[in-house]
Amino acid sequence: MPRSSTGSQIETLIQLLARVPGLGPRSARRAALHLIKKKDALLGPLAEAMAEAHAAVKVCSTCGNVDTRDPCSICADERRDASTVIVVEDVADLWALERAGAANAMYHVLGGVLSPLDGIGPEELNIRSLVGRVEAGGVDELIVAVNATVEGQTTAHYIMDQVGDLGVKVTRLAHGVPVGGELDYLDDGTLSAALRSRTAF
Amino acid sequence: MPRSSTGSQIETLIQLLARVPGLGPRSARRAALHLIKKKDALLGPLAEAMAEAHAAVKVCSTCGNVDTRDPCSICADERRDASTVIVVEDVADLWALERAGAANAMYHVLGGVLSPLDGIGPEELNIRSLVGRVEAGGVDELIVAVNATVEGQTTAHYIMDQVGDLGVKVTRLAHGVPVGGELDYLDDGTLSAALRSRTAF
Repeated sequence: MPRSSTGSQIETLIQLLARVPGLGPRSARRAALHLIKKKDALLGPLAEAMAEAHAAVKVCSTCGNVDTRDPCSICADERRDASTVIVVEDVADLWALERAGAANAMYHVLGGVLSPLDGIGPEELNIRSLVGRVEAGGVDELIVAVNATVEGQTTAHYIMDQVGDLGVKVTRLAHGVPVGGELDYLDDGTLSAALRSRTAF
Repeated sequence: MPRSSTGSQIETLIQLLARVPGLGPRSARRAALHLIKKKDALLGPLAEAMAEAHAAVKVCSTCGNVDTRDPCSICADERRDASTVIVVEDVADLWALERAGAANAMYHVLGGVLSPLDGIGPEELNIRSLVGRVEAGGVDELIVAVNATVEGQTTAHYIMDQVGDLGVKVTRLAHGVPVGGELDYLDDGTLSAALRSRTAF
């Protein structure tokens, strides 16, 4: 868009919006226009919410979750079972597990997976702090809930190696047919895994 | 997401992001997480850009464009041909025409199209101010660049009625095959129109 046709503040807004995941250059323009039209109902509150989040957000020094307090609300929650720690790749995975309400346990966010090609070794991930938490005692079970990708499984094995001698039980998520999934559309690996891990009816 | 697992500032940010067009509840969470991870590189600047846009944006009292000045940069541009006014439905259409660099003319933004079922009559659109601009003199041609929909064409006819006696030339965009388009995928109406308006080779 030629500079002459819009003010520089609008131009800056479009350029920054285009860097938000889910928005491209085209949808950023559409979003900017919508925000400008809803100036007081949306643009103003959103600007304020972003400024507040920017000021308030912290990374939990125990588990790596993002929250507005440190230790985060999960680590500080005494009703949770502190003897079980779920190890996830990313905060998004933690949020997904919390949404599912699947566990009443603690978490540990690795911040990624081992990927030598991308230059991500053990030092780039929060593995040392995980080993520290296990060594400090009180953890009975580590549930390694990394993605079922090659990198995820490599990371899981590396963690197993690191904590293997510390007397903690290490488990991982079950493979199988997704609930509501159709067999016809599943890949061979998942089908084989589901068959191997079949359960009594 | 249960309230306990994230701070209220993060929750507010996600809820507001979900109202941005192009983002839904799911991608709003993803976007919020990305913004939080890039706290200083993206979240901070975006908050600032939004606050600045909120403070600076004005609607041009002449043409209805949004800009940070009134009259807008287009209306204030003396190198433009003020005798030609392109009538568009929305600011997005104005931006599209400006991006294409298709014209060196003035614009008039209607703010929508006539749609009795949605309760949008002539009074809800900037039609009176358009007639006023024509009556004030200096406008030789109105190019009605509304969408090729039923509502758009109805609006075009209504505008034609309103300015018909004022001695201004009223034109509309040509129908035809989009540049780069394949005949096979075009609808019958477009094909017929392209055939009727065929030009010498």
